[in-house]
Order: sequence, then C-alpha cells, then structure tokens
Amino acid sequence: MTKPIGIFDSGLGGLTVARAIAGAVPAENLVYLGDTARVPYGTRSAKTVVRYAIACAERLLSFDIKLLVVACNTASGVALGELQDRLDIPVIGVIQPGARAGVKATRTGRIGILATAGTVASGAYERAIQAENQAMNVFARSAPLFVPLAEEGWVTGEVPRLAARRYLQPLVEVDVDTIVLGCTHYPLLSETIHEVAAELLGHDVTIVDSAEATAAALTSMLDLPATPDQTAGALEILVTDLPGQFGAAASRFLGKAVGALDIQVIDL
Amino acid sequence: MTKPIGIFDSGLGGLTVARAIAGAVPAENLVYLGDTARVPYGTRSAKTVVRYAIACAERLLSFDIKLLVVACNTASGVALGELQDRLDIPVIGVIQPGARAGVKATRTGRIGILATAGTVASGAYERAIQAENQAMNVFARSAPLFVPLAEEGWVTGEVPRLAARRYLQPLVEVDVDTIVLGCTHYPLLSETIHEVAAELLGHDVTIVDSAEATAAALTSMLDLPATPDQTAGALEILVTDLPGQFGAAASRFLGKAVGALDIQVIDL
Repeated sequence: MTKPIGIFDSGLGGLTVARAIAGAVPAENLVYLGDTARVPYGTRSAKTVVRYAIACAERLLSFDIKLLVVACNTASGVALGELQDRLDIPVIGVIQPGARAGVKATRTGRIGILATAGTVASGAYERAIQAENQAMNVFARSAPLFVPLAEEGWVTGEVPRLAARRYLQPLVEVDVDTIVLGCTHYPLLSETIHEVAAELLGHDVTIVDSAEATAAALTSMLDLPATPDQTAGALEILVTDLPGQFGAAASRFLGKAVGALDIQVIDL
Repeated sequence: MTKPIGIFDSGLGGLTVARAIAGAVPAENLVYLGDTARVPYGTRSAKTVVRYAIACAERLLSFDIKLLVVACNTASGVALGELQDRLDIPVIGVIQPGARAGVKATRTGRIGILATAGTVASGAYERAIQAENQAMNVFARSAPLFVPLAEEGWVTGEVPRLAARRYLQPLVEVDVDTIVLGCTHYPLLSETIHEVAAELLGHDVTIVDSAEATAAALTSMLDLPATPDQTAGALEILVTDLPGQFGAAASRFLGKAVGALDIQVIDL
C-alpha cells in the first residue's frame, strides 16, 4: 500500500482542500486531521499556532505520511517554515499556491484577496504575491459572514449575494481582475462570489480557489505512476472534538456524505 | 471606594451585560475580563471551560470584587456551580435570569430561545426554564449568522432581516409569544429580531434580553444606598488578546467609544 498524504486544518474548512486533492489524485490515500477542539486558530498568537501545528503534524507522522499539507491559512502563514525545518517529508501550505495562481491569472496585476480578518491582518497573501512578482497590486478584504454561511450550507440566494456585494465593493472600486479565495471555507460560495463580482465589475473576473491551486501544486510534487491506479484511495478523518453538526457540515465541505461513524475523535 | 463588580466572558459579547449593569447601577465600579485569546468557549469541553472560568474568576478576585457575573452563556451553563462552591462572594450567571424573565413574560407558556449552536445543544435554557415552571414549552434554535453580524455592526437592513426570518421561522411555526436572546451578542440585533418576529407571527412578541435580566437580578442582590451616589462608576476592561478590530467592536457592544488605550492586555 502506498503511504498516505497527511492534511491538517484547525477545523473542517480544510476538507475543501482534501476534496480538491482527492479530485486531482484520486488513487492517493488521505488522512485528514481537523483540530476542532481548538478551532479557530485565527484568534491565537503565532507561538500558540506553531505549537498546535507541530502537534497536528506529529500525530499525522504516526500514519507514516509521505507529504504534509497545511490546509489552514493561519497555520500556513505562521508555521510553515518551522514545519519544513522539523520534518523530513515535503510540507506545503495553502497560501503560496493560491498566491502563485493569482499572479498567473491576472492580466492587469490587480489582485483581490478575500480572507478572514486574521489572515487579512497578517498580510500573508500580500507577501506571498509580492515574493512572486513585486509589481502586483494586492487588495485584501475580510468577509466574516462567509464562514457561518458556508458552515450552514447557506451558499446561494439573497443573503450570500448581499454579503458578497458588501465584501466585494472595496475590491470593485480598485478594479481587480482576479480574486483569490484565501479562506478554506469560501470555495463553497465561489459561484455566488463569481457572479456578484462580475456583475459589480461589469467584466469577468477570475476566482482562484486556493484549495484547487494547492491540489495542483501537490500533484506536481508527487511521483505518480505512468498508468494511474484505478482504485479510489481511502480518506480517514480525525477530529479533536466532534461537535453536533460536524457530519452535516463536513459533507458539505467534502462534497459527499460523511457519517459520524466515518470520523474518529482523538486527543492531541 | 466601594469594591467593584467583576464580569467575565469568553470574548466581547459580555460587554452587553456590562452595559446593562452600568445602566442599572451606574455608580458601581466594574472590572470586565474578556478571554479573547481563548474565545469561543462554545466549542470546548465542559472540563476545559470550567478550568478557563476558574482562571478568569481568580484573576478578577485580585481586584477585590464583591460579586462575580459570569457573562458567558457557555460558562454559565457548565461552570456556575463550581464557581459558587469555590468563591466566598455571590456569583450569578446569565442563563437563570434570562430563563426567569422568559417565564415571567409569557402568557401562553410557549417560549422560544435563540442562542449559539453550543448553547442550544447543551439544553441549558430548557433546564433553567423548566426548573422555574415545568409546564413551560421551550423551543430553541441556533442563529449562527447573528454573531458575525453583531461583531461587524451590521444590525439593520435586508441581510439581518433575512437571517432573522430564517432563524425565527421554526419558532413562528410553534407560535411562541416570548423569545429569550440566549447569546450575549444578540441584543445588538434585538430591534430587527423583534420586528421580524412580530411580522411573521402576526402578533407582538416579548423579546427577553438576558443581559438586561441579569442586570436586574444583580441589582436586587446589591445593598444599594438609599440615596444613590451621583458619581459614575469606572469601567476597567481586561482582555487576554487584543485583536485588531477589538476597539471598534467593543464600542458597538458597550454602546460608547472604547479606545485601544482603555483596554489592558493580560496573561491568564
């Protein structure tokens, strides 16, 4: 059996990354760890997030993973270097692939970022984008309502549209042509975001989904067989706490049914 | 100088309780502690919340407080008894006063509760209401969008109205005549909640604000002078972490300007 790929996030948002990876390399086995007992990481100090990230990584190493994906924007922003230094396997985050895809997609060099308040305040996407190309203009905006909307599955209709309208307005004013979704929850709303942005801007706009960008970056790192294995890989889900609605929300993020029995609760 | 009243919450929501207390007993000195580094408590185990609550209480005791208010629904639900056992001063929570006010207000015995998913799952309001009067029918519903709406200050207009419409629908179907706001964030939306509920129900409905109910319960416990002191009491705010937007959000919750300089960051 081939070694699995390890993925962790502070909660369930990273399941959008697991979903994108399963779509890109369906034969791979995946182990997903959601640190639901300590979600969200965004409000904690960098030192604490690094400590949590190391604990998650160590637990995943016990599954003999061949590659680690930090599917959490906060942890990618503050703990990636530390994890890369400590671990003997490749470690990738979600920020750099998203930033790189944004730079590749833009024609005007004006890139918008939608992310949580914590990620916006950290300036992580600006740094990652400007490390790719200093000439880029980056405009970041937080979209606090998107997280509960995604978790509730309230992703179409008047409320998500009005919320998108409000959050996109500052990006429209600076006329971006590309918007990077810098929070793992937001891909659930990408259709609404895309429609509203195009409507407000009066022209099409490219929506970059960091989850898809990360899956693409990961694929290029794997030593894939010339003849792909036709057997679908397994997905194991571990959480540090099992909130009541976890199964239903996890199903929405993963795009397929997840029962409570498919989820293992662990201590970290 | 008279001893202060201590108030703690997992974050800034409890400032609505501090505001109500300052309104009820304006001469009292208040010390507010928001455990912003570990917010939210709702996703943590009861054991962890008890440990956090004890740490908050102990820090407030160092201010020689004469009374402790647990202005957090989660901590009120799981840690109140433990705090009352440990402390030599009176300790009150927000659930029992809200439940009691709901029982007092209803004419039909059909009470709705709006709270966070964690508080709804805990059944704390049902227990508290039925401890008052077993004949009451209690219907609880979570309203996840209300927290970010309150924190953003997005409390009127189409989006809060549509969100209220969605969350109130199940309470309308069972024809409640009283709704208890069981989350310290929700009073910021009480006007919208009141309007939408009355509109959907076709008759008026009493909105019980737990913060106001707690302030009233507290007033009856204090030994107030016959001639009230005309000097306004002081309000000291302590937080365990200072997020970027804290001052602006705190001002909305408190109903008056709070600058970053008015807030002291402490370690717990």
